[in-house]
Amino acid sequence: MEILHGNAIVGQSGGPTAAINATLTGVIRGALDEIAKEGGAGITHLYGMRNGVDGLLREDIVVLDELFAPDADGKYTALDRLTLTPAAALGSCRKKLPAAGAVGEAEIMDRLFAIFAKYDIRYFFYIGGNDSMDTVAKVSAYAAKVGYPIRVMGVPKTIDNDLVGTDHTPGFGSAAKYIAVTMQEILRDTAVYTVPAVTIVEIMGRDAGWLTASAALGRLVSGIEPDLVYLPERPFSHEQFFADIRKALARHPNVVVAVSEGLECADGTLVGEGTQSGAVDAFGHKYLEGTGKALELAVKAEIGCKVRSIELNLPQRCAGHLVSDQDITESLEVGRNAVVAAVSGVSREMMTIQRVSSEPYAFEIGHEDIFKIANQTKCVPAEFINEEGNHVTDECLRYLLPLIRGERYPEYKDGLPCHWILK
Amino acid sequence: MEILHGNAIVGQSGGPTAAINATLTGVIRGALDEIAKEGGAGITHLYGMRNGVDGLLREDIVVLDELFAPDADGKYTALDRLTLTPAAALGSCRKKLPAAGAVGEAEIMDRLFAIFAKYDIRYFFYIGGNDSMDTVAKVSAYAAKVGYPIRVMGVPKTIDNDLVGTDHTPGFGSAAKYIAVTMQEILRDTAVYTVPAVTIVEIMGRDAGWLTASAALGRLVSGIEPDLVYLPERPFSHEQFFADIRKALARHPNVVVAVSEGLECADGTLVGEGTQSGAVDAFGHKYLEGTGKALELAVKAEIGCKVRSIELNLPQRCAGHLVSDQDITESLEVGRNAVVAAVSGVSREMMTIQRVSSEPYAFEIGHEDIFKIANQTKCVPAEFINEEGNHVTDECLRYLLPLIRGERYPEYKDGLPCHWILK
Repeated sequence: MEILHGNAIVGQSGGPTAAINATLTGVIRGALDEIAKEGGAGITHLYGMRNGVDGLLREDIVVLDELFAPDADGKYTALDRLTLTPAAALGSCRKKLPAAGAVGEAEIMDRLFAIFAKYDIRYFFYIGGNDSMDTVAKVSAYAAKVGYPIRVMGVPKTIDNDLVGTDHTPGFGSAAKYIAVTMQEILRDTAVYTVPAVTIVEIMGRDAGWLTASAALGRLVSGIEPDLVYLPERPFSHEQFFADIRKALARHPNVVVAVSEGLECADGTLVGEGTQSGAVDAFGHKYLEGTGKALELAVKAEIGCKVRSIELNLPQRCAGHLVSDQDITESLEVGRNAVVAAVSGVSREMMTIQRVSSEPYAFEIGHEDIFKIANQTKCVPAEFINEEGNHVTDECLRYLLPLIRGERYPEYKDGLPCHWILK
Repeated sequence: MEILHGNAIVGQSGGPTAAINATLTGVIRGALDEIAKEGGAGITHLYGMRNGVDGLLREDIVVLDELFAPDADGKYTALDRLTLTPAAALGSCRKKLPAAGAVGEAEIMDRLFAIFAKYDIRYFFYIGGNDSMDTVAKVSAYAAKVGYPIRVMGVPKTIDNDLVGTDHTPGFGSAAKYIAVTMQEILRDTAVYTVPAVTIVEIMGRDAGWLTASAALGRLVSGIEPDLVYLPERPFSHEQFFADIRKALARHPNVVVAVSEGLECADGTLVGEGTQSGAVDAFGHKYLEGTGKALELAVKAEIGCKVRSIELNLPQRCAGHLVSDQDITESLEVGRNAVVAAVSGVSREMMTIQRVSSEPYAFEIGHEDIFKIANQTKCVPAEFINEEGNHVTDECLRYLLPLIRGERYPEYKDGLPCHWILK
């Protein structure tokens, strides 16, 4: 394979994670290695697009190999700080490129490729989830169509772990660890009183229950886990739910339940739509209270005991202070290997993590045809959910456990973590 | 002062914190030191009451000097694990002892003192917040009344930092650190998009705004903080709030606001009562949506931009994975010194922390007459809040900063923290 000479560009897209900057760090390290090579190196400069393709279309670009050049003493202080900075340091976007043949496709895509040509961009790295892989597929396809030589690589990240073609996604392990640890702390907190009480913890995941399943990881470690776990992969029945809660309350006073934000009833209505509560605000808007809050109100009305709901909300995806060392290690490797693969000739592929074994855990970095990956969702398989649909199996937890192992802490100054912030 | 010989008992009460077991650890260490003394030692055994005075009245008691005896090799493994276990390891209660002269006072208090006599209890340590100091005062007063020789000590803990007589309370620094760090992470997360959006973060504190003020600590460290901070010490005006938000949105697209759960309008209605939304659920119950959610709905209706609310909820008081080293150090010292003080003759006092200087920070442990402390609330003083009532002053942040300094991490096994759990 002939070496393709020119510049590279990297962007971040979709929802933030605590590890997306570790992946970016990996891409920067890989590119700096290439740039440092004597003669014959593929990459001259690494650009960063601010706010993904949205910013790229406005030529909102920074020069990353200059921003992250080593210090005078050869240390990579800025890059080390970037690694554990949560949320996309380059900014993100939710832009979807137009489909092939759609109205306005040529205008936007020609604009994009004119910018590629202007900056002599021959390597395109896009870090993101499902929608971002769609962008990668479209850029790949258009490059082939117009015959512009560029290597286009998808670099996965998503806390949702719902991408196909990879054992799991960078960013998932850290979110899963935050959820598993926080669940243990909530279990300690709710255990202190003797009054019967139900605590409902709402966890992210609209279509896939991977994060909610992680709330049960204590089973394999401390033996203590939430009483009940409900994933969006199974239709939700309020009747069954009340029966499950009553059974749990008969066993002990402090019942803790983990629910996915995306729970749906058999008729397709979202549990969080609040249709059971029927609440409407003063302005006539339907009250979207969220799954946890809706179930809190339902339990209060049906069972009448003390009940509280907790929405883990943004912290579960941006808690850079509590990351999985395994996840950060893999995120760095996935980013670095994306550059190595692209320079060696790979294109139109998404980087993947292949599990070699679970105990002891071992992985390999690979890549997979982007057109086999984009716009699909990997859900929790049937054998990972118990028969009653109210908990996860040991097999599920054995899959999850290696991904949350190990701790890595950011540097602190005056009690607060040191983040790298783009000016 | 004559040495008082007999047994000691310790209990935990009120809401959990991430440091309440560090204080318990301090009491246990202090008692073990006394027990180990050759001849003349005041304390023979240290008992623990399960679920505070509630459990004590049922004689639900454990022997702590046996549970936390050193290992064969002289190491205190269990005690070290207890230190960073969040939430009251002995269980808690919300029981208020009857007031002097109230109906049923004699029955309950005589029962309590009969249990003291049965177990030869001569030292009573009660770790808790405002209500718990009320218990300490009542036990002290009744002991004097019936002439039962016992030394009664209040050992403060509360994330709310609202006890008088002490510069701050054990447990506050760790909750403040969790809030300050999480706020930095939320600021990173919300900064990734360019669409105008308001994020409202609801923080604990019904009467005192100390925790909400801590959300602004980034100002002194990274220079980045929430745009607006509202404490319950000032009456809340929706009109002013909307004007503040509009001004902030004119400056930049991602506006972040910290609000206390206890915000009240000038007419005394709670902002979180949801009266502005007027929502009622299907069962006719008034919808208590919480302060953050109520303000989210209000901003959506009034300004119409993207808006999200985040309730930090239980994790802010039980996040043992992210504690302030300064807070843990002080919590241990307060517990240990309570035993030293009691054995040396002190009684009817609450342990206190006195600030010797802020920069460099230095403290001393003291104690104060419990009758001067119980049933009072220390609010954020006027000079700590800006004139507009929508932020905190530098002076406030300089008071807070030393309390969140330093990190201390629990031991982990298989990705999860090792907690000490009472069987």
